Amino acid sequence: MNEPINNNLSVNEKIIKMREHMAHCGVDAMIILTEDPHGSEYPANYWKFREFLSGFNGSAGTFLITHNHAGLWVDSRYYIQAEKQIRDTSIELFKSGLPHVPDYITYLTNVMPSGSVVGIDGFTLPAETFKTIKKKLSDFGIKLNYKVDIVNDVFAPREKLPLDEVIEMDPSIAGLDRLQKVELLRHEMLKNNISHYLVTALDDVAWLTNLRGNDVEYNPVFYAYMLVTPTEEHLYIDPHKLSSIISRRLNEDGIKLTFYDHFEKNMANIPTDARVFYDPQTTNTRIAHTLPKTVVRVEGRSYITTLKGRKSPDEINHMYASHVRDGVALVRFLHWLDTSVGKHRITELDVANKLLSFRKQNELFVSESFEAIAAYGANAAIVHYSPSIESNAELKPEGLLLLDTGAQYADGTTDITRTIALGPVSEQAKRDYTLVLKGHIALATAIFPEGTRGVQLDVLARATMWREGIDYGHGTGHGIGFCLNVHEGPQRISKVDNGVALVPGMITSNEPGIYREGQHGVRIESIVVCQQAEKTNFGQFLNFRTITLCPIDTRPIIKEMLTSAEIDWLNNYHSMVRATLHDLLPTTDEQLWLDNATKAI
Amino acid sequence: MNEPINNNLSVNEKIIKMREHMAHCGVDAMIILTEDPHGSEYPANYWKFREFLSGFNGSAGTFLITHNHAGLWVDSRYYIQAEKQIRDTSIELFKSGLPHVPDYITYLTNVMPSGSVVGIDGFTLPAETFKTIKKKLSDFGIKLNYKVDIVNDVFAPREKLPLDEVIEMDPSIAGLDRLQKVELLRHEMLKNNISHYLVTALDDVAWLTNLRGNDVEYNPVFYAYMLVTPTEEHLYIDPHKLSSIISRRLNEDGIKLTFYDHFEKNMANIPTDARVFYDPQTTNTRIAHTLPKTVVRVEGRSYITTLKGRKSPDEINHMYASHVRDGVALVRFLHWLDTSVGKHRITELDVANKLLSFRKQNELFVSESFEAIAAYGANAAIVHYSPSIESNAELKPEGLLLLDTGAQYADGTTDITRTIALGPVSEQAKRDYTLVLKGHIALATAIFPEGTRGVQLDVLARATMWREGIDYGHGTGHGIGFCLNVHEGPQRISKVDNGVALVPGMITSNEPGIYREGQHGVRIESIVVCQQAEKTNFGQFLNFRTITLCPIDTRPIIKEMLTSAEIDWLNNYHSMVRATLHDLLPTTDEQLWLDNATKAI
Repeated sequence: MNEPINNNLSVNEKIIKMREHMAHCGVDAMIILTEDPHGSEYPANYWKFREFLSGFNGSAGTFLITHNHAGLWVDSRYYIQAEKQIRDTSIELFKSGLPHVPDYITYLTNVMPSGSVVGIDGFTLPAETFKTIKKKLSDFGIKLNYKVDIVNDVFAPREKLPLDEVIEMDPSIAGLDRLQKVELLRHEMLKNNISHYLVTALDDVAWLTNLRGNDVEYNPVFYAYMLVTPTEEHLYIDPHKLSSIISRRLNEDGIKLTFYDHFEKNMANIPTDARVFYDPQTTNTRIAHTLPKTVVRVEGRSYITTLKGRKSPDEINHMYASHVRDGVALVRFLHWLDTSVGKHRITELDVANKLLSFRKQNELFVSESFEAIAAYGANAAIVHYSPSIESNAELKPEGLLLLDTGAQYADGTTDITRTIALGPVSEQAKRDYTLVLKGHIALATAIFPEGTRGVQLDVLARATMWREGIDYGHGTGHGIGFCLNVHEGPQRISKVDNGVALVPGMITSNEPGIYREGQHGVRIESIVVCQQAEKTNFGQFLNFRTITLCPIDTRPIIKEMLTSAEIDWLNNYHSMVRATLHDLLPTTDEQLWLDNATKAI
Repeated sequence: MNEPINNNLSVNEKIIKMREHMAHCGVDAMIILTEDPHGSEYPANYWKFREFLSGFNGSAGTFLITHNHAGLWVDSRYYIQAEKQIRDTSIELFKSGLPHVPDYITYLTNVMPSGSVVGIDGFTLPAETFKTIKKKLSDFGIKLNYKVDIVNDVFAPREKLPLDEVIEMDPSIAGLDRLQKVELLRHEMLKNNISHYLVTALDDVAWLTNLRGNDVEYNPVFYAYMLVTPTEEHLYIDPHKLSSIISRRLNEDGIKLTFYDHFEKNMANIPTDARVFYDPQTTNTRIAHTLPKTVVRVEGRSYITTLKGRKSPDEINHMYASHVRDGVALVRFLHWLDTSVGKHRITELDVANKLLSFRKQNELFVSESFEAIAAYGANAAIVHYSPSIESNAELKPEGLLLLDTGAQYADGTTDITRTIALGPVSEQAKRDYTLVLKGHIALATAIFPEGTRGVQLDVLARATMWREGIDYGHGTGHGIGFCLNVHEGPQRISKVDNGVALVPGMITSNEPGIYREGQHGVRIESIVVCQQAEKTNFGQFLNFRTITLCPIDTRPIIKEMLTSAEIDWLNNYHSMVRATLHDLLPTTDEQLWLDNATKAI
């Protein structure tokens, strides 16, 4: 049909239109994913076809349409929201993770007869996922057609790819210039005998080019691909996004510019004897399958992910500087909060906006680094809660406020959670708060041998609360980009083992929590830098340096639950925060507030 | 050539003969592995071709022969032994794990031109390893021929497969009878729609049939395969191994008997539309590749590994009973040791033999469960040390003796390590001893949510010593069989994540250690059973029950390094040991020794 589906149609009408398109393409069912062609966490609107078609606008979920059925699969974060958003449609909700709820592939293999064809838009399908899905379906004789181009054929005429101009990072902040970075990449290519390296993740492109963009929320990235060979670098980007100055500078650096939408076609023309590297988690199926059949494909974790994960001393210094300024904004905000709650009406949204206003006073501020979580009381027990107009709770001078926010600065990226007592809190909340603090300190003070992976350290933050029969359902730490994505690989500290050892220069969050449904939520998060500790007969040991500078509320602490070593850590941390931030605060009131908030317990 | 190589030849002459055989088979290089066709830890002599050909008799290592070169790859346990054993040969030693030492596949891809053919005996090659090797070689245009039958054609006429009779477990001890076990397996087969299940691991066969054998050292297993379908069970075994009584009983249970060496041939005749399950880690390449091309292959961890890993309450009770009796033998031995060292000449081998003699006094004793480690002083710093006539150190009334031993009983399997002060020990040894004890207690007292894997708990035993810049190079815990292999899957507690969650009924060792080269080695090992702890709003929690009953030497403890909770644990453990063993000891001297060894610190 090749005619876009009208947005004025109801969801049910859109589904009928979609079935017509499926018939046109010869597919019996259609899987509709949430990804953009680069495996991004936040896709631009251009790619939000799942949302357009189903009405569900969560950040994750899979929509499935067959001849006579439509189903939406969402995880526990979105059970309630999805239920509400699809209420008046024919869509059935599948709550992933609940017992007896099949995943969408199992559902498909149950309902589709052998010989059917399932369609999917290969641009939105990472090459890695393609293999998994194809294998599972083919075990039941079901074919997978990844060439159904929904986005371009049915949806896109309504949306445009963002055309925002990219900006160039100050070379003094980026540390290495782009040609030095390309040389680092080439070094890895040489070791692995790679003739063609596909740069497909948006933050990989941004890191390699020292360019930043504004194409999606929160992440300063822009839509582009790169191809790097031993002698050439090609940047695939819409030319409207490049000022003449940046174009010239890229030209001077020998970087060849090509249209973004020529990438797929050009990949088909790579020499047939090439050894091509791509990361199958961020390279979409269309790109991966368009490569000539004869090339040797080397799939693996992007070398750039590894290179950019290990921050240089310059980058760490800049990150620290941005954390100092972020700390000033945070202390000013906390002072305002302490002196305002109970005096006039303040809601969760007010809190998020007020903190943003303090951060905006910093001239290097760019944007928030993710959607602020300001969760009061029982709202904080919902792990991925962000206040909306409907949910927006009013703060009272009692209980706990959980505040998880972050900022993009021109010289760094921050992410911090503090849980603040607005007045009296329950004994259980104090106990939970203290257990979270103990977990936070255990990870902050860990010493571990080279080669240790995040999965091994994760338990340090949990072991004490496990003894009390308590656990939390999220990871303990994620990597953080340098003026890039607030969630960045390759490392993580979680129950899942991704095989990545922590190395000096990696920057990670430290954020244990405890969530009691209907009561309260506690999380304490600071950012830590991995660095070398002592070298012994047993090898090189590593530890963490905490660079987040903001008081940890001492009011909900049950001091008797802390060891003397834990008390020492807290008091030392607070001395450091006070010494660093005190003179940077503009008012005496704020200074006095800091002095009080950081006094030894 | 098909003529066995004469054992009277020197290693260099054998290599020349082997090259003739390689030419005869049309291969340019030959990889010679250590495995038997079942992926066993201890192969029978019949399969020890690598040892026969190279002269190196360690438990692990790979031998590689090309037209003009022979290389032996061994890990750090065997650097010294291998060096000695190949000294007068043309074999080059490759110390795996050292920097710049290529693995044998990388070596092959470096020296062999594209188009060459590498041979390997598919009987000794797990199907999983085949895939890895084949892929790596094919990236360089090198072919892999897995049909070079060294064992049968060149080596085996000299050796026979063991013909020892198998015995049947007492049904009251086995808990479930073999048909009940087959039904458990069928239940898993049904869930996965499996029509033919290949039982290839020897301990899987032993578990399923409730039979035990004597074909290899330490593990009470016998050479056999099984094929289970929804309606039939076929046991492939040499009929000489079956008494008429056992044959009849197997017949009565409907188990069909076939010759062991018909297994490969019969696998070729499985129906072409079968869905066949096999575990590629314990199924050799010959078997895996002989299956008809059209069958659906479902590869994965053996269902039996999972079933037998989770011990029944009956099995746990029997295991406990065998640990009580093992504890009696251990206490009697420790009493003898304490009263003998310094009085007359005692060596490491004497110690191992003396402990064995106490264990043998138990009528249910079958054999040791692995080669005893009795390591005095600096010998204990060699992690896999077992005393030999050359190394056999004499014990003096000073320093530490590390004793890691175990037994097979008719009703259980034990594995225990204690480190004993024979007199004054250094401050460093005391510190290390106390750190190991702290790690041991941290794991013994862990509480953790359902779903937790060994890799997550491993760090509990290490975190404290890591703070002192100390680590150990082995895992913290391995699964243990019930009257079966002392090393058993699927669970483990180690730095490596094998994805297996601990579940109630799993039995695991808890054995942190510290090893200082040239000085001393410390390890404290007990056996723990995973069991349910409390259920909370956050889910079901699990913990461990320690079933090893033997004093932990308190003399090398630096009490100030222990927390009061750790001291309580130790004193409670010792009370339990004393209460359980005291009245079972035959002499008052031994009882008094136990009272003293277990008194509270």
